[in-house]
Amino acid sequence: MRIRMVISYDGTNYVGWQTQPNGITVQEEIEKALFKLTGEKTVLHGSGRTDSGVHARAQVAHFDTNSRIPADKFSFALNTHLPKDIRIMYSGEADSEFHSRFTAKRKTYCYTVQSGVHEDPFMRNTSLFIHSPLDFDAMQKEAQAVVGTHDFAAFRSTGTVNKTTVRTVFESYWTKKENLFVYTVCGDGFLYNMVRILAGTMIDVGMGRIEAGAVRRALESADRSDAGATAPSHGLMLKRVIYPDFDTEEVLGK
Amino acid sequence: MRIRMVISYDGTNYVGWQTQPNGITVQEEIEKALFKLTGEKTVLHGSGRTDSGVHARAQVAHFDTNSRIPADKFSFALNTHLPKDIRIMYSGEADSEFHSRFTAKRKTYCYTVQSGVHEDPFMRNTSLFIHSPLDFDAMQKEAQAVVGTHDFAAFRSTGTVNKTTVRTVFESYWTKKENLFVYTVCGDGFLYNMVRILAGTMIDVGMGRIEAGAVRRALESADRSDAGATAPSHGLMLKRVIYPDFDTEEVLGK
Repeated sequence: MRIRMVISYDGTNYVGWQTQPNGITVQEEIEKALFKLTGEKTVLHGSGRTDSGVHARAQVAHFDTNSRIPADKFSFALNTHLPKDIRIMYSGEADSEFHSRFTAKRKTYCYTVQSGVHEDPFMRNTSLFIHSPLDFDAMQKEAQAVVGTHDFAAFRSTGTVNKTTVRTVFESYWTKKENLFVYTVCGDGFLYNMVRILAGTMIDVGMGRIEAGAVRRALESADRSDAGATAPSHGLMLKRVIYPDFDTEEVLGK
Repeated sequence: MRIRMVISYDGTNYVGWQTQPNGITVQEEIEKALFKLTGEKTVLHGSGRTDSGVHARAQVAHFDTNSRIPADKFSFALNTHLPKDIRIMYSGEADSEFHSRFTAKRKTYCYTVQSGVHEDPFMRNTSLFIHSPLDFDAMQKEAQAVVGTHDFAAFRSTGTVNKTTVRTVFESYWTKKENLFVYTVCGDGFLYNMVRILAGTMIDVGMGRIEAGAVRRALESADRSDAGATAPSHGLMLKRVIYPDFDTEEVLGK
């Protein structure tokens, strides 16, 4: 039986999603919990990696099991074995063709910035604090330039290899509530560090560090040096993943 | 010179506000930072204690200093010496008659409850998770009974001593947004654990554990056993303190 799950995690205490030698990962914690529960050595497939410190409101992962635990009960059973900063918000049976990564159609990320005099301690792990004003309108204009199908070669960390650097972005906008600025971007896929470099470039424009039009210029030149800084990981959140037959928003009920 | 400050802290990692032998407190951290900054052994006076795990968006504290640091610069200078879960959000000069505790006129606390299927990991340190539905209207009716001047003897931890257990509550209500229930209470003072017992009693009514009218009955009997459970500390937040010449909401600008 193939099980798919929606997972929320506060990434602060993890070196990211994917199992690696130099620290505890979210994937590893859940695989350990699965082993305790089923006695099976299970490999969990996530919809994509999140880096050290990055959060997820809705990561999707699937695994195959011979366990007789009902599909919808895995969430409850696993949560009893998991630390409180990782919660399985949903579990259910999926078709054998479902694959968390390969059948994903759209993903949405959010990047949160706090602009103010002193940092709100309750937001310290989930937003980037900036001690200077941000020009919301200027950032919004940069965000609009992202929508569409573009070569995002300028917006990936140097040294990474992809078959193609062309991606389609369906939505890209900033919202503001009091002193919190949130960048939301929905696309068919993202290059390594793409959202953090997009957010970092727009924040640089919003602070007046680089000139307006930077996103468009970098999209045209495909040159990493035309884009701005890579924004720190702790402001980033994987918010939603959409499949042909599954949408994380539906099961999270928000 | 007397300095007053507004302090926000995530109480998760502290055994409360007030200095005590069995763990690190918020007061202690700030007094240490003051010593580093001024070289003076300074005693910080808070508007009131908060227990282990309780949070503050706006705790008020004052101290006297001979330092030549400008009053409004203490916040910036202290924050460089403080852990990120404690932030001085404001500092300024106060009259020598100002006293954080004795001149406070009103305080507002909030208690947050999350009702749902699985606990949101991002709210794990700042709300009580309840895996059962809550009857909002029933809780609201209980909250209304709190408003006014009453003997709150039933709503304090047994064994505590006060000159009088009569307090005046100006506001007492629940709000609901998605699956978050927030109880707000504003009064001229609170007995030890009063807000947590009020919240706990209303939650017990909201879950159907005790009968509607519990708050009124406990106010009339002044008997602790007529009230409900003491809600856990981590859902509680000191939100606002008001003085004749000072309101924390003004300086927090929200």
